[in-house]
Amino acid sequence: MLYSKFFIPTLREDPHSAECVSHRLLLRGGCLFMASSGIYSYLPLGLRILNKISNIIRKHMNAEGAAELFMSHLQPMEIWQKTGRDKDLSEVMIKFKDRKGRDLCLGPTHEEEITEIAKRYLSSYKQLPVILYQIQSKFRDEFRPRCGLIRSCEFIMKDAYSFDADEEGLEENYSRMLDAYNRIFKECDLSVVVATADSGVMGGSTSHEFMAPADIGEDVLFYCSKCDNYFREQGCCDKCKNDLNPKKMIELGHVFKLGTKYSKAQEAYFLNKEGKRCPFIMGCYGIGVSRIISAVVEQSHDEKGIIWPNSLAPFELNLVILDLNNKELLEQALEVEAILRTEGLTVLIDDRDEPAGVKFNDAYLLGIPYILILGKKFLNTGKFELERRKTGEKFSFSKQELIKYLKDDY
Amino acid sequence: MLYSKFFIPTLREDPHSAECVSHRLLLRGGCLFMASSGIYSYLPLGLRILNKISNIIRKHMNAEGAAELFMSHLQPMEIWQKTGRDKDLSEVMIKFKDRKGRDLCLGPTHEEEITEIAKRYLSSYKQLPVILYQIQSKFRDEFRPRCGLIRSCEFIMKDAYSFDADEEGLEENYSRMLDAYNRIFKECDLSVVVATADSGVMGGSTSHEFMAPADIGEDVLFYCSKCDNYFREQGCCDKCKNDLNPKKMIELGHVFKLGTKYSKAQEAYFLNKEGKRCPFIMGCYGIGVSRIISAVVEQSHDEKGIIWPNSLAPFELNLVILDLNNKELLEQALEVEAILRTEGLTVLIDDRDEPAGVKFNDAYLLGIPYILILGKKFLNTGKFELERRKTGEKFSFSKQELIKYLKDDY
Repeated sequence: MLYSKFFIPTLREDPHSAECVSHRLLLRGGCLFMASSGIYSYLPLGLRILNKISNIIRKHMNAEGAAELFMSHLQPMEIWQKTGRDKDLSEVMIKFKDRKGRDLCLGPTHEEEITEIAKRYLSSYKQLPVILYQIQSKFRDEFRPRCGLIRSCEFIMKDAYSFDADEEGLEENYSRMLDAYNRIFKECDLSVVVATADSGVMGGSTSHEFMAPADIGEDVLFYCSKCDNYFREQGCCDKCKNDLNPKKMIELGHVFKLGTKYSKAQEAYFLNKEGKRCPFIMGCYGIGVSRIISAVVEQSHDEKGIIWPNSLAPFELNLVILDLNNKELLEQALEVEAILRTEGLTVLIDDRDEPAGVKFNDAYLLGIPYILILGKKFLNTGKFELERRKTGEKFSFSKQELIKYLKDDY
Repeated sequence: MLYSKFFIPTLREDPHSAECVSHRLLLRGGCLFMASSGIYSYLPLGLRILNKISNIIRKHMNAEGAAELFMSHLQPMEIWQKTGRDKDLSEVMIKFKDRKGRDLCLGPTHEEEITEIAKRYLSSYKQLPVILYQIQSKFRDEFRPRCGLIRSCEFIMKDAYSFDADEEGLEENYSRMLDAYNRIFKECDLSVVVATADSGVMGGSTSHEFMAPADIGEDVLFYCSKCDNYFREQGCCDKCKNDLNPKKMIELGHVFKLGTKYSKAQEAYFLNKEGKRCPFIMGCYGIGVSRIISAVVEQSHDEKGIIWPNSLAPFELNLVILDLNNKELLEQALEVEAILRTEGLTVLIDDRDEPAGVKFNDAYLLGIPYILILGKKFLNTGKFELERRKTGEKFSFSKQELIKYLKDDY
């Protein structure tokens, strides 16, 4: 991909609106456009990162036998009245009447709608278990949006829902989802803490939260530096008798055993082995997909810009051409791109008519894991100079060595 | 993919709400769930088809140098006031105030927001041309939703926008998009007519519509059976002196030369070569992605169900196992699936504990282009019986012949 033909509008100055590091770097790095307070558009680079995260999530959901669907954003209010959550979520729900007087809302979550789907189509224990998930925009009327994608009025969630015939089935699906979540956050290279939590407005018995330690977090856990454990309550560690320190956390995932709260309220029943009508035993499993972008940047950046982990890189290689008048350099760049493409790796070729300083600054800001420089040095020595963004390590490679190194590292 | 682990809830009876063939077959075939009148959720099979179409569109957009982004669904009303389209689209726009009293709407289209993005980031002719596009849900307060995805309150659009420094640039991008559109509809196996059209509420000078002939269409063109041409106006064909017949059409794509209507109204300027401030010359290019699903089904079905073209098939092969007690059949099925996977082809293995009749009916209803039957005949002869959904042709193949045939046809 040629930078000159793509659309990565980096900003030289910090936007006034930026409230924290990730917000500032995502705006400056051409990933996000603020349409209005708490409302963001994903520019092409931001969308590529969002897709990387979404595809990691899909891989691990599909591996657990979950099937992807895509529910409507608009929902009839009548299904919310059945569970009483029209009142519980009243403040943050975006509601309106349409031209025909029908009461609609924009889905802040989809437990009610998925329960209607199960009610419509699942009638026998033979069809169970079922896990369905989607990756989709959700809406909340946030009074105080903050830090870009950390708390916004429109955000992207992965929400999964399990339907089982009995508690053992729920137990099994719940632990499968916990496993998948651990793999997902690991693959996103996020440092994450798992905490048991209240179920609150969701109902049900047990729940687990996946939280990323970060200064800008809104949740607080208490940390024992001796045993390296986190606790919900402040005080001292029972085991170590060590004072606990508060740590700010960003909530990235939340899984709940819902039990029969929704199925009973919405009369979603199936026939069990004995032919008895029973409500589905449900679980729900959320991940803040867009919030992961911000959390990764909070955990992985330096004074020069973002440092994407290999797994989320919008391109695998940022190839900076220093002399545009020299045709050989562009030819070499296109050749490297073509070879890497056969290995499934993508290259951003910075062919802009800009000073070297601007190109280097942008390369550090964008945070693509490897930067390859093609300039005088290459013309004199025939060697490719590769820089690893995270460590600053520099390598001097033949073309074969370069390809092998990148292929092995990704 | 095992049918028993996936979620394809077919219906034996026609839903009451179904108004036309495509609506009926998509509901019965486990593709769509109606959440409320004019509001649909895509079940897993429907989502796979939607993704096939989206990826065809992406391929042809990217080939023309367009960059994909993902804009917000929520939009501030103030940008619509700049162009006056808050009034033009008042009836169909879903509008509301948030908790802080901010006036927002759900985007029925994104000319205003993309113009704000161009205004923010594009300042010089050197950055032009730029084409940006997205594939995303749009919202319209339809008074009379009809025929499922043909006219719904929530639907999926591909909307692209071009920004040029001069009319020649627009001309070039416009014709590139026309070419891409022809390739897209061809790859979707749709019979489509291109008509010049009024620009109406969009403003600008020229526009072209891409329409699919279908009985349920809402637009009318007039057809000359002698020269096989379509016309906007009724009457008789100038060339053939033949009476024109009205033909119903579904509008699937619409492209517009917008000129400077939006850039002037929103003060979106760039500096040209001479250093003069000029408004961007714009074009916009829409495709009704979800509507394509319905149009394809209208054009391609029989009394038994849907007939997907190869390019849109949710799976490439529907493999029906007739005797579940025979382990060899499932083993063979999984082996065929594994081999086809290496060729990039996906298989739905119908391993449900259902009578053969139910499985055949569902196979015809779902419309996967090829049906492979594994039963007694296979056990006796070692031959794979393949049926082509579209023609009913039957083939008897060895495993090698089967793989080669499918590989060649896709």
